[in-house]
Order: sequence, then structure tokens, then C-alpha cells
Amino acid sequence: MAGHVYGGIEAGGTKFVCVVGSGPAEILDRKRVDTTDPAATLAVCVEFFARHTIRSLGIASFGPLELRPSHPDYGHITTTPKPGWSGTDLVGPFAERLRIPVAIDTDVNGAALAEVRWGAAKGLRNAVYVTVGTGVGGGAVVDGTPVTGMVHPEMGHVSISRRSGDDFGGVCPFHGDCFEGMASGPAIEARWGQPAELVHETERMVEIEAATIAAGLRQIVYVLAPERIVLGGGVSKLPGLHDRVNDELVHQMSDYAILAGHRSVFVVPPGLGDDAGVAGALALAMAAA
Amino acid sequence: MAGHVYGGIEAGGTKFVCVVGSGPAEILDRKRVDTTDPAATLAVCVEFFARHTIRSLGIASFGPLELRPSHPDYGHITTTPKPGWSGTDLVGPFAERLRIPVAIDTDVNGAALAEVRWGAAKGLRNAVYVTVGTGVGGGAVVDGTPVTGMVHPEMGHVSISRRSGDDFGGVCPFHGDCFEGMASGPAIEARWGQPAELVHETERMVEIEAATIAAGLRQIVYVLAPERIVLGGGVSKLPGLHDRVNDELVHQMSDYAILAGHRSVFVVPPGLGDDAGVAGALALAMAAA
Repeated sequence: MAGHVYGGIEAGGTKFVCVVGSGPAEILDRKRVDTTDPAATLAVCVEFFARHTIRSLGIASFGPLELRPSHPDYGHITTTPKPGWSGTDLVGPFAERLRIPVAIDTDVNGAALAEVRWGAAKGLRNAVYVTVGTGVGGGAVVDGTPVTGMVHPEMGHVSISRRSGDDFGGVCPFHGDCFEGMASGPAIEARWGQPAELVHETERMVEIEAATIAAGLRQIVYVLAPERIVLGGGVSKLPGLHDRVNDELVHQMSDYAILAGHRSVFVVPPGLGDDAGVAGALALAMAAA
Repeated sequence: MAGHVYGGIEAGGTKFVCVVGSGPAEILDRKRVDTTDPAATLAVCVEFFARHTIRSLGIASFGPLELRPSHPDYGHITTTPKPGWSGTDLVGPFAERLRIPVAIDTDVNGAALAEVRWGAAKGLRNAVYVTVGTGVGGGAVVDGTPVTGMVHPEMGHVSISRRSGDDFGGVCPFHGDCFEGMASGPAIEARWGQPAELVHETERMVEIEAATIAAGLRQIVYVLAPERIVLGGGVSKLPGLHDRVNDELVHQMSDYAILAGHRSVFVVPPGLGDDAGVAGALALAMAAA
């Protein structure tokens, strides 16, 4: 689709980033819109895209989202703690005004699609994107299609094996010590009594964090058998984290011998950096065009 | 493809079941071949199919298998404890003699495909088949395609949350208390000191088994978000097991509210019964034709 121009929205809880372009390296216009109430936020975004000629629009959004195509609430946010946003139709306002195909998926499914298209998982048939930051989330692409079903995956809420002797209770309001409850930024802060960047015992902190993340990734590997896991998010920037997670994963999955041959290229940093969100939105748009 | 006839092999450790037909309800011929050494076993199967005119052949096999299409060992069994079978090329002998497309996948991916095509997950976009018997395994179909990647999924080896106060160590030679190590038939026998059918405290046994299986399925639901899980295998025939697993899953995933509305239709028995294996092989053949 060389020459075509697409629209993308990275829809988050604090900002909506709207872009027009044909890929992460070809962004022609960009607008940041603060996330206020739904009607006002979406209206500003609609007007931005109405000024451009785009072939299709992709929305990579926070959730939870209704993504079953046959469901009457397809493209709506379902129930979110974010005030005013539960039940918001994210697709309708754009489809009605712009009269183009509008695709929507989770931010992490969008990021996975973008990493397969342009980034660190380029060309792979089966790849996963996991973000570890304020929360933990994961998206997957299998044979070019982001994985959704009854709802979308919530990979951050798998349970994980507890490290021997560890009695930290975790911070997930639903499960306590699930993947997110044990590995997220807030989990690090709760465990150490201060944010990661202030912890003096960096080596020990990274060691524990890598083991915890590997315990979560193990579940994903056994269920989905991805060819590669792109690990992003703020926590993933801890020094040496990816190498340690790779080593821990090989250690924890000793029977899964094939991993040993791919150590250091199995869990990798994102190829698209901070533009993964808008790149994901553009990738969704291109897939829907 | 009405009118066409396909070949299927359910390849197991004790027997290879070869069928010719156009679906599980239209099996035209069938031959059981004992699993002896690879060359002899495969030769008998090849001769069976050479007597028929089939459009394509599907093999639903025990593993582990090399399933990356670009790999030189595609279609081979990789490393198996079964004497003589490591490295066996399952596809080559059929492709060379029969000169038709030959598809191969795991037995559980085949069963998942068959259940989506004809059985208890008919028409769904995203469905999982899990068997709990001598071992625990799972296959998934997303948008019509069985999920494989670096290898195939090994869903039986996810780790699971331990029930409070339970000190049973599990029987998995690799992980001890993973899903398979805690929920398989041999795990029941180790926990109770006798096979399930001889245990007197049936109610309590089913309760523990349902909670254990639900802890494993939780991981699959969070990673893949299937619309339905077909739960088969010998252990799944314990009285009332599916209902209890549904209830347990809703309980363990209290945040995943959508499940509550699908209770009793989310985890279901297979629709194809004991023919799931050969049906899976035929489904693989039809997808490859």
C-alpha cells in the first residue's frame, strides 16, 4: 500500500495521540489530546482526522474493550475505573464522520502487530509483546492477526510460581501475587519501599525482577509458543534486564530445550521504542484498509 | 469440498489409527496399526493410503514435533523418550509415495480444529482443546488456524497456584507441581494412593481435581482469551467435573466478569468423543487441500 496514508490513535488514560502517516518512520502530522471526558476528547480527535485524507483509521486503546465483531457493543470500552469512560463507543464517532474503515484493538495487541511489521519481531509468524510498567499487559500476533476471543488477553493476570522463601504479597487488587501484582512498577515500589530508580541494591532488585518476569513469561511461552517476546515498558529499562530474563527463562523451563539455542534473541527490547503505541495504531489501520 | 475424500492419521504412542473419509460422520475405511518401530509402522500406513484416492493427508501426532514450515526438519518428531522415534520424519514417507499435500500438527491442535469444525466449539473464532488424562495437553485455534510458533504449545506445563494448605508435590518429572504434575491421572493416583476409579471419597476428589484444573485453565484464559474451552481426556469423565470446573474458574477469576455470564457453556465436554483424534487428522487434511 505504498503511497497511502493512514490514521492512528494511541488512546491512553492520560492522553490520546493522533497521527497521520504511512508507518512509524513516516509520520506526516501528529496531535496530542488530553484525555478529559469522552465526548470532548473524541470530538477533538475526529476534527484532527477530518482535516486529512486517510484510507483507514486504527485505534490502539486502553481497555477493557469489547472486541467480538458480532457484538452490538463492538469497539466500546466496557467497564473501566476511569470516570465517565465505561461504555464509551470509541469507533462510532470516527466511522460516522470519516466514512472509512476503523479498526480497534488493545494497545498491546497494536504494539505486537507493529513490532511484527516494523520492529523487533519483524516477519515472525507468532510473536508476543509484553509491557511491564505501571501495569503488566501482553498482546499476541499469530499468523498476522492479533489474538482476541471472548475478550482480549489479560496476560498480566496469570498466576506465577513464587520464588522460594519470598513472602512479598503483591499489589494486584484482584489476585495479590499474580504476574502484575509481583512484577509491575508499583510492585517494585511496594517491595522495596521506594521507586526502582531510588533503590540502592540495584543488582539484587534486577535479579528478583528478572526472575519474576521470567515466571510470568513462562506461562505465555507454554500456552502460545511464540517465536519471540518483545519486552517493553518502563520497568524493562532496568540495566541488563533482558539478558537476565532470557537466562532465567531458560533456567525455569529446563525441559523446553529449544529455548537454550535462542537465548539472548528470545526476549528482546522493542524495536519501535516510544513510538510503539502510534505505530500499533497505524498497523491496525493498514490491516483494516 | 463436498464429495472429496481425505486421509487422516491419529498418531499415538501405542497405535496409529488411519482413516479415509470426509468427516467424523463419514469414515469410509479405517485401519489400526500398532506403534512399533518407525519404518515398519509408517510403511503399513503408507500402503493403506496408497490403496485409496485421497485429496490430502492430515497427521495429528504425539510430539514434540518440529512445526516451523521453514525448518529443514519440518514434520519430524524431535526428541521423544519413545525408543527409536526421535528424529523420525512423519511427513516425508507419505508425501513421497502419495504425492499429495500432507499436513501435520499436534494431536491436541488437531482436536481443537475438529471441535471448531464439527464439535463443541463449532464456528468459534478462538477456541482451546485441553485434554487431562495420562498427561495434560492443550491446542488452540485462532481464526481457523492451529497455534504453533517456536514449537507448539505445551499448555500442560504452565505453573499453577497451589491450593491453600495443599502439600502434594506433584508428579511432573520437569516441574513437579505444574498443571500436568498436579492434575493428570498419574497425579490423582499419586495423591490418593490409588487410581481415580478406586478412590472412595469421590466428592472430595472431584472437588480438588476441579479446582486444580481451573487453576491451569485460568492461565490459558488470561493468555489466549478463548471463547470456549473443550475439556476432554479420561480424567474429564469424572462425574460432574465440567460444571465444577466452570464454577471454580468463575471463582478464581473474579475480576474476569464476562465469564460469569457464560458459566456452564465456557468449559464443555468434547462434541466428538473418542473420534476427536481422527477427526482432527481429517480437519488438518481438509485445511491443507
